[in-house]
Amino acid sequence: MVSFVSDYIAGAHPDVLRRLSETNLETMPGYGEDPYCETAKRKIRDCIGMPDADVFFLTGGTQTNAVVISTMLADYEGVLAAKTGHVSVHEAGAIEYTGHEVLELPQTEGKLTAASIRDYLDTYYGDAAHEHMTFPGMVYVSWPTEYGTLYSKAELEAISSVCREYHLPLFLDGARLGYGLMSPAADLTIRDIAQLCDVFYIGGTKVGALCGEAVVFTKSNMPPHFLTSVKKRGALLAKGRLLGVQFDALFTDDLYFRIGRYAIEMAEKMKKIFAARGIPFQIDSPTNQQFVILENAKMDALSKKLAFELWEKKDESRTVVRFATSWSTTDSDLLALEAALKEVYP
Amino acid sequence: MVSFVSDYIAGAHPDVLRRLSETNLETMPGYGEDPYCETAKRKIRDCIGMPDADVFFLTGGTQTNAVVISTMLADYEGVLAAKTGHVSVHEAGAIEYTGHEVLELPQTEGKLTAASIRDYLDTYYGDAAHEHMTFPGMVYVSWPTEYGTLYSKAELEAISSVCREYHLPLFLDGARLGYGLMSPAADLTIRDIAQLCDVFYIGGTKVGALCGEAVVFTKSNMPPHFLTSVKKRGALLAKGRLLGVQFDALFTDDLYFRIGRYAIEMAEKMKKIFAARGIPFQIDSPTNQQFVILENAKMDALSKKLAFELWEKKDESRTVVRFATSWSTTDSDLLALEAALKEVYP
Amino acid sequence: MVSFVSDYIAGAHPDVLRRLSETNLETMPGYGEDPYCETAKRKIRDCIGMPDADVFFLTGGTQTNAVVISTMLADYEGVLAAKTGHVSVHEAGAIEYTGHEVLELPQTEGKLTAASIRDYLDTYYGDAAHEHMTFPGMVYVSWPTEYGTLYSKAELEAISSVCREYHLPLFLDGARLGYGLMSPAADLTIRDIAQLCDVFYIGGTKVGALCGEAVVFTKSNMPPHFLTSVKKRGALLAKGRLLGVQFDALFTDDLYFRIGRYAIEMAEKMKKIFAARGIPFQIDSPTNQQFVILENAKMDALSKKLAFELWEKKDESRTVVRFATSWSTTDSDLLALEAALKEVYP
Amino acid sequence: MVSFVSDYIAGAHPDVLRRLSETNLETMPGYGEDPYCETAKRKIRDCIGMPDADVFFLTGGTQTNAVVISTMLADYEGVLAAKTGHVSVHEAGAIEYTGHEVLELPQTEGKLTAASIRDYLDTYYGDAAHEHMTFPGMVYVSWPTEYGTLYSKAELEAISSVCREYHLPLFLDGARLGYGLMSPAADLTIRDIAQLCDVFYIGGTKVGALCGEAVVFTKSNMPPHFLTSVKKRGALLAKGRLLGVQFDALFTDDLYFRIGRYAIEMAEKMKKIFAARGIPFQIDSPTNQQFVILENAKMDALSKKLAFELWEKKDESRTVVRFATSWSTTDSDLLALEAALKEVYP
Repeated sequence: MVSFVSDYIAGAHPDVLRRLSETNLETMPGYGEDPYCETAKRKIRDCIGMPDADVFFLTGGTQTNAVVISTMLADYEGVLAAKTGHVSVHEAGAIEYTGHEVLELPQTEGKLTAASIRDYLDTYYGDAAHEHMTFPGMVYVSWPTEYGTLYSKAELEAISSVCREYHLPLFLDGARLGYGLMSPAADLTIRDIAQLCDVFYIGGTKVGALCGEAVVFTKSNMPPHFLTSVKKRGALLAKGRLLGVQFDALFTDDLYFRIGRYAIEMAEKMKKIFAARGIPFQIDSPTNQQFVILENAKMDALSKKLAFELWEKKDESRTVVRFATSWSTTDSDLLALEAALKEVYP
Repeated sequence: MVSFVSDYIAGAHPDVLRRLSETNLETMPGYGEDPYCETAKRKIRDCIGMPDADVFFLTGGTQTNAVVISTMLADYEGVLAAKTGHVSVHEAGAIEYTGHEVLELPQTEGKLTAASIRDYLDTYYGDAAHEHMTFPGMVYVSWPTEYGTLYSKAELEAISSVCREYHLPLFLDGARLGYGLMSPAADLTIRDIAQLCDVFYIGGTKVGALCGEAVVFTKSNMPPHFLTSVKKRGALLAKGRLLGVQFDALFTDDLYFRIGRYAIEMAEKMKKIFAARGIPFQIDSPTNQQFVILENAKMDALSKKLAFELWEKKDESRTVVRFATSWSTTDSDLLALEAALKEVYP
Repeated sequence: MVSFVSDYIAGAHPDVLRRLSETNLETMPGYGEDPYCETAKRKIRDCIGMPDADVFFLTGGTQTNAVVISTMLADYEGVLAAKTGHVSVHEAGAIEYTGHEVLELPQTEGKLTAASIRDYLDTYYGDAAHEHMTFPGMVYVSWPTEYGTLYSKAELEAISSVCREYHLPLFLDGARLGYGLMSPAADLTIRDIAQLCDVFYIGGTKVGALCGEAVVFTKSNMPPHFLTSVKKRGALLAKGRLLGVQFDALFTDDLYFRIGRYAIEMAEKMKKIFAARGIPFQIDSPTNQQFVILENAKMDALSKKLAFELWEKKDESRTVVRFATSWSTTDSDLLALEAALKEVYP
Repeated sequence: MVSFVSDYIAGAHPDVLRRLSETNLETMPGYGEDPYCETAKRKIRDCIGMPDADVFFLTGGTQTNAVVISTMLADYEGVLAAKTGHVSVHEAGAIEYTGHEVLELPQTEGKLTAASIRDYLDTYYGDAAHEHMTFPGMVYVSWPTEYGTLYSKAELEAISSVCREYHLPLFLDGARLGYGLMSPAADLTIRDIAQLCDVFYIGGTKVGALCGEAVVFTKSNMPPHFLTSVKKRGALLAKGRLLGVQFDALFTDDLYFRIGRYAIEMAEKMKKIFAARGIPFQIDSPTNQQFVILENAKMDALSKKLAFELWEKKDESRTVVRFATSWSTTDSDLLALEAALKEVYP
């Protein structure tokens, strides 16, 4: 069955897999000390224009969030995040498992605002009893957000500026970074992001890799003995080459960006197909995740023809569902979508 | 300066201190195996009408919340609590330190409702991805709440009933239990609470002891080897007698209840004094904590005459402040309050 | 340079990589719900003769140890392990990070004995103050051990028997299981291990996979909501297929065992090469890791020709080094070893 | 029954209890901001001759060890301690609960040596794979040790010197500090200890208080926002006065030292009583804990007349037992001991 369930329904982009095959018999050191980790890091540093940035490869998104947040926070600190942020909702308490609180802020379409962050901080420090409360120690944003939306350059600058004023590192979860960067709605480049954030990651798992996220510390601020902290959290891969080779491939000949652009193009086409049938969108997403509202009976009918993801109940008779594109989405998949919709929404 | 800052501004109730003196030279085993811990437990069991309940003495409220919650939750579970609950706000992340998430629910005057708990649970279990989210594993309520309010018997029964339906233990934080029980507004007895909750504690620190909270497990549900888990959390007192003797005194001749009643009587008088000056209440609290709204200039003037606690900003020109009574509040304190208010609010 | 540094210096066994390529474009659900995870689990259950065993795929060894140990221990328990066990020494405190103590026991050639375990337990329970000490809650053994040695069937039966007597689960770390099973010195089969242990894992990373360990719970004892606990520890792979496809390949046509046998054959040849030059062994290892003692000057000379791993200082003038074989070791590698040794040890 | 079970069998020293009574009705702020905490801190600073030292009051020994160690270690670090150290054995895994490993070193009569610490560090940093192992981040010693023995000034200077060379803070557990300082065998003063250690604590619970330990940070090295970290661990007492008043009393008119001296004098008399009956000592302890070897049958007979603590099995027919003195030991207790021994060892 044609599937739009997520952007991780297929294996690796063929160019990534090919490089794994080509390098398979080479022998090399483990734990990230292989030459491909080195070249991948260099290519990422070149790409973001920061020759001194520290780059570290981890396996998945929840792991990356937990490792980064728990090694950068002080003992008495927690992380500010949108109430809908991945760390707040969909990580089964992975941040709390490290002993730190997620301080949830209100959000709009998955986004925080500089004003609400400042407000929180002012209220916190204005409270005489604040030493009995978790100190805010970091701001976490996702880009694109969990709803596919994007902070504009002005919005991220404003957030970054509040963070600097209060000496809080700004951490950007880029699990789907490639789709944000290639969205026509984006006015942020990867270099902007590197400038504005203290740490961010370039998602591989959802953008063409079998697994892997590249964490970038932009301010000479990688926690000391980070490898040991990673090991301690069970997150250090013995065959680090698996991550190095994949990111080396993704950052060769702009593959990472080409994957992003392709998925966005497919998403644009998909939006037109939904619009043509008059199906309403829950949110105006400019990236590869599209959230549409289906009547429950039609949703059931559609689910017999196509795979997609239930997102949330809209009301008694309607449901929000997600359709995602990726490098593996084909034109024939879209034709199948069009045909199925025509039948269900004649 | 006369102080209404909190209910823990003085030492121990004289009868409690007297018993500490009388028993001081007796030699006895440590770690809670002394005869006073035994008699105190028996008196508490008698008082709640549960001869088989397990009772364990801990030192303070945040400690008790963290120990109880972390030993009763399964690995994959978190605790549901009001957004204003003590565990949500004022414990510096003590629950998260144990690796567990506090799942915050909306509240009214510090209280949860059975409906909102049920709603949360239905949404959670209705979400196809719920296994990627923290399981709700317990419900935490405070009685009285952080705002001095009380759940009625009907409200607590409804919450207890939802909890049982979903097999969630109900935990009641009774740091100020004595003030709730003796409030004229209360229609719950300590026996009702013991019946409706799976675990609760009888607060000593804020109700006449130097320190100490008595945790009661009502359903033969004390976690196995609880003493070892308490020790592991650094919460086992070597001279357990300090807690045993105090609770033995508090549960002799109804002292715990007499302390509660006295403080409530003083609070009733205090409310009249505020009302007489036309000072508005932030909330209608039937217990020993009173929250009034002061204009900032008058608040400053008053703070030169009396000690009280800043609670939160009401708006640009007004502040909510707390005045608390306890066994140590005297009629002369109230006269001082009356005099000071007359000067500031002529 | 020819390398004997470890058994994870190359990528995946070609048959494993081929299956990743063949299945790459298939779309499937994430998080381990794909069909390959299912068939891989079935093949493992068939192989061990336990149709009802629970199997779960994780990414690496330290991660697996931490996840298994922390989800199976009670709050007040720790894990018994050899002082030289991987969990005791080489995981940067990963077990302690989960809040549990590793209780270290003396060892011989990397192995525990049933007698020393029983001794520990008797002393522990015989101590009147044992409730102030961590309860022993599990026994951890590695097979092969960190020194390449193997427990005999009689030895593992004796340990298993003590464990059952004291109601302690027995956990076997099989990071290198394939090399143990195919050693001529082994009198244990994988079915024996499944019978004798409560939980064990079949190492993939060091036996032909890019990454991956298959945890087997043999007694209907997989912790409840294990997936959520895995997610909470940042150990749940989005593209679970990466593990499913690899283990499906490893358990097709006995590939896992063929890899093991091949590496053992190469190790046997390697032992003869060392013996022919009169180079002493630190330990008599019947598996794929060989530990030899080199004079420091000769070691330096050799290290210019071949890569191997420094293990530990033997004395002022000599060092213990490790040479490992795997599926990727070739006859030409052994010829290079022979030639290099001839030059250095003429 | 006359008891020598421990040094915490009675309540507080009468002078301490008297001060609690005298100050009981004074109202004051909570959480350690009361005037008695201030004066107690000043008196301790004066006593150790360090006007700038930071002092913080906690409730008990295990709690203090866990709070100090976990707030001073970096994420990737563990603490070096004697295999017999309190943190290694008798805290039910309290240090591991904070996510940190206790790195156990061999000991003699409860003591570490500078040489064995240096050895450990050299081996650790000499290991090429040391980044996969817990970094040594602190040295923990007890003074007196768990066996009642004392480091000499030369020994502690040597340890302190190794610590400084390797930039490791030295932490001294002074749960029984007063007994060490007043031992005729001690050549260390409290000022020496303050100079040689980075952090240490002055034990109250076992030296005359109902509860309480005074942690002293000697090098302007109190962890930032320490109060919040203490709160987060459930270790912040609401009525901090309970600790402040007691330590104020203990450091008034040398009470702390007088308690220590008295207990030592009683211990000296006790030693003579044992020696007179030819009862062998397990260890030559110069402090208030005495460890003697009893034949099991005689031990049983004695236990019907006196209370003491079983320590450990000596061999099949003999047991090591502990007798402790404190401020509450009386001459009549010693007469009872003498009489009982005469009967059992005629």
